[in-house]
Amino acid sequence: MTEKDDHTIADLIHDETFDMDPEEIRKIGYQMVDLLVEYFKDMRTSAILPNKTLQEMSKLIYEPLPQNEQTADKILDECKKKIMPEMIRIGHPRLLGWILSSGTPVGAFADGVASALNQNVSVSGAGMATAVELLVIDWIKEIIGYDPCAAGLLVSGGSLANLTALTVARNMKANFNVRHCGMKQDRLDKNMVLYVSKEVHVCVPKAANILGIGTDNIRYVNVDHNLRVDTEDLRKKIVEDQKNGLHPFCVVASAGTVNTGAIDPLESIADICKQYDLWFHVDAAYGGFAALSSRLKPLLNGIERADSIAIDPHKWLFIPYEAGCVLVKNSSYMKQTFAMGAEYIHANTSPISNEDVDFSDYGIQLSRNFRALKIWMSLKQYGVLKYGRLIDQNVHLIQYFAALINETTDFETLTDPCLSIICFRFFPTDLQKMYNDSSSIQKEMISEYLNVLNRDIIECMRRDGRILLSSTILGKRFVLRACVVNYRTTKKDIVMILEIVRELGSKSDKKLRKPF
Amino acid sequence: MTEKDDHTIADLIHDETFDMDPEEIRKIGYQMVDLLVEYFKDMRTSAILPNKTLQEMSKLIYEPLPQNEQTADKILDECKKKIMPEMIRIGHPRLLGWILSSGTPVGAFADGVASALNQNVSVSGAGMATAVELLVIDWIKEIIGYDPCAAGLLVSGGSLANLTALTVARNMKANFNVRHCGMKQDRLDKNMVLYVSKEVHVCVPKAANILGIGTDNIRYVNVDHNLRVDTEDLRKKIVEDQKNGLHPFCVVASAGTVNTGAIDPLESIADICKQYDLWFHVDAAYGGFAALSSRLKPLLNGIERADSIAIDPHKWLFIPYEAGCVLVKNSSYMKQTFAMGAEYIHANTSPISNEDVDFSDYGIQLSRNFRALKIWMSLKQYGVLKYGRLIDQNVHLIQYFAALINETTDFETLTDPCLSIICFRFFPTDLQKMYNDSSSIQKEMISEYLNVLNRDIIECMRRDGRILLSSTILGKRFVLRACVVNYRTTKKDIVMILEIVRELGSKSDKKLRKPF
Repeated sequence: MTEKDDHTIADLIHDETFDMDPEEIRKIGYQMVDLLVEYFKDMRTSAILPNKTLQEMSKLIYEPLPQNEQTADKILDECKKKIMPEMIRIGHPRLLGWILSSGTPVGAFADGVASALNQNVSVSGAGMATAVELLVIDWIKEIIGYDPCAAGLLVSGGSLANLTALTVARNMKANFNVRHCGMKQDRLDKNMVLYVSKEVHVCVPKAANILGIGTDNIRYVNVDHNLRVDTEDLRKKIVEDQKNGLHPFCVVASAGTVNTGAIDPLESIADICKQYDLWFHVDAAYGGFAALSSRLKPLLNGIERADSIAIDPHKWLFIPYEAGCVLVKNSSYMKQTFAMGAEYIHANTSPISNEDVDFSDYGIQLSRNFRALKIWMSLKQYGVLKYGRLIDQNVHLIQYFAALINETTDFETLTDPCLSIICFRFFPTDLQKMYNDSSSIQKEMISEYLNVLNRDIIECMRRDGRILLSSTILGKRFVLRACVVNYRTTKKDIVMILEIVRELGSKSDKKLRKPF
Repeated sequence: MTEKDDHTIADLIHDETFDMDPEEIRKIGYQMVDLLVEYFKDMRTSAILPNKTLQEMSKLIYEPLPQNEQTADKILDECKKKIMPEMIRIGHPRLLGWILSSGTPVGAFADGVASALNQNVSVSGAGMATAVELLVIDWIKEIIGYDPCAAGLLVSGGSLANLTALTVARNMKANFNVRHCGMKQDRLDKNMVLYVSKEVHVCVPKAANILGIGTDNIRYVNVDHNLRVDTEDLRKKIVEDQKNGLHPFCVVASAGTVNTGAIDPLESIADICKQYDLWFHVDAAYGGFAALSSRLKPLLNGIERADSIAIDPHKWLFIPYEAGCVLVKNSSYMKQTFAMGAEYIHANTSPISNEDVDFSDYGIQLSRNFRALKIWMSLKQYGVLKYGRLIDQNVHLIQYFAALINETTDFETLTDPCLSIICFRFFPTDLQKMYNDSSSIQKEMISEYLNVLNRDIIECMRRDGRILLSSTILGKRFVLRACVVNYRTTKKDIVMILEIVRELGSKSDKKLRKPF
């Protein structure tokens, strides 16, 4: 390269940047904060759901690929006018659908800070972000009473936490080197078999698909009337598979099923896993932080015996999305499963690199953001005592809901409240009477009508906007599902929800009922 | 449940909440913005790396699990005093280590907004967040000239994007139903085989481990002197494996290798994949957005023929972590690979649910945050024309770097600059002369010394704090690696980097040199 070339290239560079004037950044920052303050302030009074279809929303925001610059002001204004009004108000005190948690404002701001700091919590140099993540993981282990020496990793949520744990389980329990050889589920009589509850979260069979275990090699264990794993059926299935030469390798128990909040009998499952040498994994994504309540903690007895645990701070720690966590008791197993050598990562072995803790060795992601910050801030802001009271209160609110229902003649509960979930349905008083006096054919007709009716209630609810529940199917029954993972919900909200379901249900009933 | 029980439960509920006073939220929000403005303002003058060990940092922030509440003020102050000073300044104009990108301030604030809105971009109801994600994905497809009908998904980054794409590739190309049966890599003569470059990113073999393909079933294809896939070797390996009854199923090409920025010959690889019926995946995590520069776009010719693509907005779109994207040409394949039925998710089929686009059907995560917002805001703020100029400039800066080096007598480049990466090393003038006149034994001694010397430069650099490069190993040579994915870097920074490397190198040389 000659001097001339050098100059030519230099001449091409105009030292353009994306830099913004600091006062401009401050102005935009304040405007965003103001927007969010309004959003939080209006949370109790806003409609829960937008009333546009996806197509309408896509049309509303459509624009061709932006060519030219525009001011941040203008974009923010567009965000305020077009995007924010159409948000689902997750965090609304009467949104008890799914297991959606109300995020803390400070947790949200912490995410803004984390993104501005833009740490990549895998590279050496991101020592402080690594230290905060390690501290937060230590706190989580202490909260649930898990081995303080266990390894852990923050991930996006339960799906990744369960996938990560099951990858470790598979690799550690295989009788061959999966990492090198790949999976060998073609030996029919030797396949590795995974045991899950019939109530297992959908991310577990999804993980079995990804891991090459195959959904055919999952055994769905029966549940008792409380929808908890039937341990005798579990034992029977394991023994039978062993007898047939298969390789039972892992049981997934739930500490808070997504459907009903059921907690599987962890101690008994731990015993079975020990007896038959299976990996014991607990999906505590939803229920794990119940341990913050001293009243609820005993429900989780046995979790400390798990080989691995999935637990979601973005559920009952009220952390904004995304924040999941996976823990593995044997601290070397994660590295054995995931660590890869790569010159461009590991060539730096300076005294200030974090050679001992490179989180990319613990899981799937290489680039990782600083999600520990929001957990650190939220746990410090409220402290575990207040957290415990709030979680306790969430559970009490659902028990209160059940008590209210049981005083009515036009509702029925389908499950006992477990943790903070209840399944129930609207069942008009006259139909309840009619049902009890009916023939089996008529009973079936009424049952079918109840499904139609309750399905319609969900649809009306979505348009109404004052409350939002989700639904599920238990047996053949379409039921309403209320789940409180919400620090804003109060007794008044519960009363109001029941009244509104009755109001909507009565209207639907009038609209839909035909003589039986 | 009697009325008395009801009252008892009601009495237990004190309607405690985590609510903060709106003005308190505003105050904290403004304080956070002020902190970040200072952080951005000081970016050019701050030390790049903290000078504490992980252990020291852990000690600095250690505290037992917080029991009691404390004010957000106090926590923020702690964040400011203990955490922020210890950040690695990713975004510093003279941090050219790894492929770490400088995030935009508006992108960072957008993450704060997204976390406050706390959308779960899988649930029906999150229609607007879904619409924004769809729009952003459409824009990305347009930028790289990909099929507008392709399906896409935002993920955490390149590791998940590649894993997601390879799961689809595996499931779609298998001669059996992987999803149900699991992987069958025990048939030795029938195993599914994956072809990658010797320069492939480490997340690809990691994916092969997770997917049960097994690293033994990866063929590492030779590279030419520019470190691009040698297509003749690729073809030879595929033919040989086919002849042996194996099942070649997928080639992973790189559009911008992490080591040197090399772009594999995409057109030729596409031809080979077509000829032998292999899935063609392109890892364009780093290089994909080079398409924003009309000058660079032709380098990516052939990418539009890929069956799937991984591309990272948190690299050359200057989006803060985490923001990756996976695209799959056949729009039904992602759903076929990942969609699971689950009552509690799909029971709602109301007119305002997004039944057509449930992103959890497209990949691994169920709960997903609103990461599209920061991409939407950043693309709108700068527009693709300015983006194109900045990316072009990043590439020119590295060419300028190469030109400067080639004018010196005490450095050598080890690769031609490709995209925005260059590998080089400090090679003192007298040693260059000595090397040329040396015997082969002496040459080897000098080579070894150069490795020691350049390794020491990296260590000194980390303590020095004014610049930061990374390093890699090419052949047996330990080399310095500079990568500009940074909108703040200017010509002056490049000149300064070279001067500082020389300064540090000369000092190290004085310290370490012994007579040969």
